[in-house]
Amino acid sequence: MKAIFPLILAVGALGASSMASAQFAKPEDAIKYRKNALFVMQQHYARVGAMAAGRVPFDAKVAADNAAVAEFMAKLPWAGFGEGTDKGDTKAKPEIWKEQAKFKDKAEKMMAEMSKLAAATKTGNLDSVKSAFQATSGSCKSCHDDFRAQ
Amino acid sequence: MKAIFPLILAVGALGASSMASAQFAKPEDAIKYRKNALFVMQQHYARVGAMAAGRVPFDAKVAADNAAVAEFMAKLPWAGFGEGTDKGDTKAKPEIWKEQAKFKDKAEKMMAEMSKLAAATKTGNLDSVKSAFQATSGSCKSCHDDFRAQ
Repeated sequence: MKAIFPLILAVGALGASSMASAQFAKPEDAIKYRKNALFVMQQHYARVGAMAAGRVPFDAKVAADNAAVAEFMAKLPWAGFGEGTDKGDTKAKPEIWKEQAKFKDKAEKMMAEMSKLAAATKTGNLDSVKSAFQATSGSCKSCHDDFRAQ
Repeated sequence: MKAIFPLILAVGALGASSMASAQFAKPEDAIKYRKNALFVMQQHYARVGAMAAGRVPFDAKVAADNAAVAEFMAKLPWAGFGEGTDKGDTKAKPEIWKEQAKFKDKAEKMMAEMSKLAAATKTGNLDSVKSAFQATSGSCKSCHDDFRAQ
């Protein structure tokens, strides 16, 4: 019999439509899931960032493809922050579960900024991409500052 | 200066349209990326499988949501199998890089079966989901048998 961990954030806070109702056999799986989803997101996000920073020549198609994957991936990690997933191989701070509304707001802000970035890449305008990338990175940092241990 | 690992599979074999041209700063990142993408895929895939096996009551919406994420995730790992990513924390067999055409065929087969599974979940017909899940699992096993160490 596998234990099913309820997805408080998925159902209550972020809305079922943005989640795929992932459920986990054990807390370690949820922790691994959210870390894995964030890593995949970050790899694609960094490709856009390399162009925004001028380290890699801007290629609108490559930027748009990577931003689209990052946008998709941005929706996934939150299902892995259910109750009982605060202990283990994680840098997640206890504040996540104490300040759910605040955490939810920051998650939603990040998803919104990531969607704006994906839209910006579709314009093919590098200045728009730079601006949106900066805003998105700010939303990452804001959440990490409050909710991720160093 | 970061090394960029060419994505042979992404560009040549599986088609740029199904990839997001992820590139990696180092081979370890590529290995971690493909493992992480496959784990996220597997978590969603397993949710569909639990219904196909009758361990969890069939919910067409939940099945469709999870299958859609699994279908998306199924496209990602292959970019992580570039040249130079055969050594490290991986069960990937050297045959992957010696038998690229065969590996490509199996990857494409899995993606095709996963898309059929996603389509089946949309019908709301559990028998169709069971049948498609079985076919998809067969494509996973076939590739693991040849290309993943025990």
